[in-house]
Amino acid sequence: MLKELVMKNRSCRRFHQEIPVQRETLEQLIDLSRYVASPHNMQPLKYLIFCDEENNEKIFSTISWARYIESWKGPAQGERPPSYIIMLGDTAIKDHFEREAGIAAQTIMLGATEIGYGGCILGSAHQDKLREYLKIDNRYRILLVLAIGKPAEKVVLEEAGPDGDIKYWRDKDDVHHVPKRKLEDIILE
Amino acid sequence: MLKELVMKNRSCRRFHQEIPVQRETLEQLIDLSRYVASPHNMQPLKYLIFCDEENNEKIFSTISWARYIESWKGPAQGERPPSYIIMLGDTAIKDHFEREAGIAAQTIMLGATEIGYGGCILGSAHQDKLREYLKIDNRYRILLVLAIGKPAEKVVLEEAGPDGDIKYWRDKDDVHHVPKRKLEDIILE
Repeated sequence: MLKELVMKNRSCRRFHQEIPVQRETLEQLIDLSRYVASPHNMQPLKYLIFCDEENNEKIFSTISWARYIESWKGPAQGERPPSYIIMLGDTAIKDHFEREAGIAAQTIMLGATEIGYGGCILGSAHQDKLREYLKIDNRYRILLVLAIGKPAEKVVLEEAGPDGDIKYWRDKDDVHHVPKRKLEDIILE
Repeated sequence: MLKELVMKNRSCRRFHQEIPVQRETLEQLIDLSRYVASPHNMQPLKYLIFCDEENNEKIFSTISWARYIESWKGPAQGERPPSYIIMLGDTAIKDHFEREAGIAAQTIMLGATEIGYGGCILGSAHQDKLREYLKIDNRYRILLVLAIGKPAEKVVLEEAGPDGDIKYWRDKDDVHHVPKRKLEDIILE
C-alpha cells in the first residue's frame, strides 16, 4: 500500500557504505521517472549515475548535511552514501525544472525504498564545485543530488508540538526524530 | 508494485463528473503528503479542498487544458473534474516551494491512482482569478491545482521517435497518446 511506502521512505543520511548499489539498480530507478507527469510533457530531466569510490568522494565533498544538527558534520567514513544519482535540467529543452524535479525525485526515492534502499534528496550541493569535479556541461542545470544506499540509521516521525517547531533532532541513542505538522494544520478549508 | 502504480498514474483530463469524490477521501490523500521530504523539514504547503459544484465551476473557469490539442478547449460539461485540491505555499514559513510542491503532488496523485481515481496536476490556473474567486489570502502563493476524479479517457504511453517529438496527441478513437523519451536518452553517464 502506498501509505506504508511513503512512511517508510524517510530521508536517511547514514548508510552501510560497504553495501554497494549496482548501476543497473539505479538505472531501473531512473526508468521509473520516465513515466511521471511533466509540464507540457517536455521531459527536460537528465541523469548522471555514480557508484564508484572516486566520484562518490568528490560528490560527497560538495554536500552540506542536516542543517539543524550543528554538532554533526555529515556521515563519517564507512557510513557515507555508496551511490548517487545527479538530476540535471536540460536547458536546451526548457529553463525551469523545479516542480518536475520534485515529482521525479519522489518517484525515484519511493522506488529505492520499495527495494530496501533509502536515501536523501539533497539540494544543498555546492553547484560550482560539483560542475567542475564531474565536468558537467553548462547546458545542464544541476538540480538535485540523490544519495542512495542501505540505511544505517533509525528515523522516527512525531507530531509537531503546539509551538510548531519542526526542527529534526537526534536523541541520546542517535535516533533521528522528525516532527510533522498535523493534518488539521495544513488543510485550510 | 510501485512501477505499476507509476505507469497507471496518467494525467487525465476527462472525468466521470457524475461520480463524486468525498471530502474525506481528499483529506486522506493530503494526509499522505504530510510524510514526504521537505527541505529543512519546513513543511510550508497548505491545502484547500473543493468538491461542490459552485466552487468547481469557478476553479474550472480559471484553467487552461492540454496545450498541444488546439482544437479541444477542455472537458465538456459532464466530463469535468468532480473535485479539486488546491496546493498553496505559506509565505509565513518560507518563500520558495516548487520542488516540494512536486514531491507532494506526485504523492497525492499516486495515492489517488491507487484507490481508482485519476487526475491532472495543473500549473496553468489563472492565479489572480483563482485568488479572487476563492478569496485566497495574499499570505499564500497558489502553487498547483490538482483535479481529481474517476477517469473517463484512455491514455497510452509510447516511445518518443527519433525526431524527439514529445507532443501528446489524440487518435480518431479519442485515445490520448503520450510519447516518452527513452531511458538511454535521459541517462547521460
